[in-house]
Amino acid sequence: MTDALRRPLAPGATIGILGGGQLGRMLSVAASRLGFQCHIYEPGAAPPAGHVAARVTTAPYNDLDALRAFAQSVDVITYEFENVPTASLDALEAIRPIRPNRRALAVSQERIAEKDFLTGLGLSTAPYARVTDLATLNAAIERIGTPAILKTTRLGYDGKGQARIMTPADAPAAWEAMNGAEAVLEGFIDFSHEVSVIAARGLDGSVACYDPGENVHRAGILHTTTLPARLSPGQRTDAVLIAARILNALDYVGVLGVELFVTPQGQTGGLIVNEIAPRVHNSGHWTQAGCAVDQFEQHIRAIAGWPLGDGTRYADVVMENLIGDDVAQVPDLARERNTQIHLYGKAEVKPGRKMGHVNRVIRGLT
Amino acid sequence: MTDALRRPLAPGATIGILGGGQLGRMLSVAASRLGFQCHIYEPGAAPPAGHVAARVTTAPYNDLDALRAFAQSVDVITYEFENVPTASLDALEAIRPIRPNRRALAVSQERIAEKDFLTGLGLSTAPYARVTDLATLNAAIERIGTPAILKTTRLGYDGKGQARIMTPADAPAAWEAMNGAEAVLEGFIDFSHEVSVIAARGLDGSVACYDPGENVHRAGILHTTTLPARLSPGQRTDAVLIAARILNALDYVGVLGVELFVTPQGQTGGLIVNEIAPRVHNSGHWTQAGCAVDQFEQHIRAIAGWPLGDGTRYADVVMENLIGDDVAQVPDLARERNTQIHLYGKAEVKPGRKMGHVNRVIRGLT
Repeated sequence: MTDALRRPLAPGATIGILGGGQLGRMLSVAASRLGFQCHIYEPGAAPPAGHVAARVTTAPYNDLDALRAFAQSVDVITYEFENVPTASLDALEAIRPIRPNRRALAVSQERIAEKDFLTGLGLSTAPYARVTDLATLNAAIERIGTPAILKTTRLGYDGKGQARIMTPADAPAAWEAMNGAEAVLEGFIDFSHEVSVIAARGLDGSVACYDPGENVHRAGILHTTTLPARLSPGQRTDAVLIAARILNALDYVGVLGVELFVTPQGQTGGLIVNEIAPRVHNSGHWTQAGCAVDQFEQHIRAIAGWPLGDGTRYADVVMENLIGDDVAQVPDLARERNTQIHLYGKAEVKPGRKMGHVNRVIRGLT
Repeated sequence: MTDALRRPLAPGATIGILGGGQLGRMLSVAASRLGFQCHIYEPGAAPPAGHVAARVTTAPYNDLDALRAFAQSVDVITYEFENVPTASLDALEAIRPIRPNRRALAVSQERIAEKDFLTGLGLSTAPYARVTDLATLNAAIERIGTPAILKTTRLGYDGKGQARIMTPADAPAAWEAMNGAEAVLEGFIDFSHEVSVIAARGLDGSVACYDPGENVHRAGILHTTTLPARLSPGQRTDAVLIAARILNALDYVGVLGVELFVTPQGQTGGLIVNEIAPRVHNSGHWTQAGCAVDQFEQHIRAIAGWPLGDGTRYADVVMENLIGDDVAQVPDLARERNTQIHLYGKAEVKPGRKMGHVNRVIRGLT
């Protein structure tokens, strides 16, 4: 990297964000606090991030001309959506730096590459095996056992492209659900709860982690994140060390979400890496209510080459997602004490759609 | 008011904001959290609020056609700038409600009307007298004494349009400084410090106040606001009661800033009203760091007909303004612990110009 690219962005610079959903929206707001403007690139019309951004480009992710014009108009490029086509990233990167880098994207776009990367670092993951047809699925079930879960290796999140396998007899239906796509079979982990670490690495290589939060999912979608998480002091340290090892191995710049299963016992203090997300993460939304610098600003600081901010937690917080019709509760939530509402400005309510979240602040620290 | 106007605005509605400076910018960000979009009306090009708003109209405050089109495009109108011409307000109000209402604007646009209103409520102000020429100034000095301060009755803030009178001999120069504008002579108050109360009143008449902050000015511009303020428990109650009396008397909807002098002794527990501002206020910026709902969101909730939010303070905070060249400190401030930076996205640094502020969070409460 040349010295010019290492220089911090000055206030007034423009940050390009691939993806115009709620993460892009909250990144744009955070960028404004540091005096930056944002340019959103999003295929869908009227994106939520567009309500609070200086500029929006509406074009598909494979429109190379639109991508090049977008890159020319910004000083650095980041993303809230990690499944951008490789050719598009090539076109963008020829013009402006993309942060986090391509390696982080490559690893997180493909579940097997991700697990190979994590186990290569000496970290624990669920047992896993590549599945390309019913025969390899049956062989994988024999090795890993049941219950297990079959997932497409690409483009799945929030429970999409997944099938549970409770007994070997479930294999044909599960393989059918993959629609012919390459998949990975993951063994079930006997875990007591899930935590996540929201970690950041600056352009200077410095690392900062938020206090881990404890996650509860409903129907495959994050429901709540509670701070503090149930972790021993040793596990809390391990969680941060795991995140730092991942960040350093990827020469990562920005915020990364690391989901960890907490098991009764096992390697690395009983913590097993579930998955990583190379971006701000739903389980880090609580930082908006309990820290001087939230995950969105931390990400902007990192990609802008600024020093990482102080994310020390100064309150206990419970974040709760508003999914689909949950948003009808807003008039009641607006009357609740200690409750911070965040709506995403999405016009249409759909089942399973993330419409907003609330942060409930419990004063003082436990 | 018809029932339709009393109904809370639904997420997705558009809020019109007169003025595109830093207050409009932070109001627009707060509105986005509740799912609203903002349309900014601002005479100046490239306003700071435009970086985080869905729409901007660039037109003078006396362009009635532009004002009418703006009003038609929004659901409710508010302002960060209270010196909008009366004819313009008439045109806007014929189309959409303006909150806070015209009475609040009329009272705060004219210093003598403001003081008459406050003393009419039984509240203490500095002694004052109307000045229209050198003769009335000399008579006023004879009655009020020196030191005193002469201020234009309209359009002055941040120390503009003011002249100090230390002895009667200063009268001619002070009157000259008014450029022929009507003025008010205010007696000096022997106060130990200044506090301000950021108060809000909802469409349903409910009132909520933030904990008072203690203000320090430099060169006539707010320098710091510190929470908690030095106030006795009785004074803290009095401060809130004073604010509530003002809000109720004006049938006010929105956030109001009330500056109070704290004197060694006197009426109403030693608190004397300095001035009121019918909008979010610089001395309320600390609420971004120490409360679940900040003053900007509180204002949006009020004008949208939502319930007022919970502004209970859960941390000690010191807000410091970044004026003019202070903004050059940002690279150092970015490394400070407990420090939240807010820059306003203003392209040009000028002496005395508010470029941003920082909130320093002291964990726990004193």
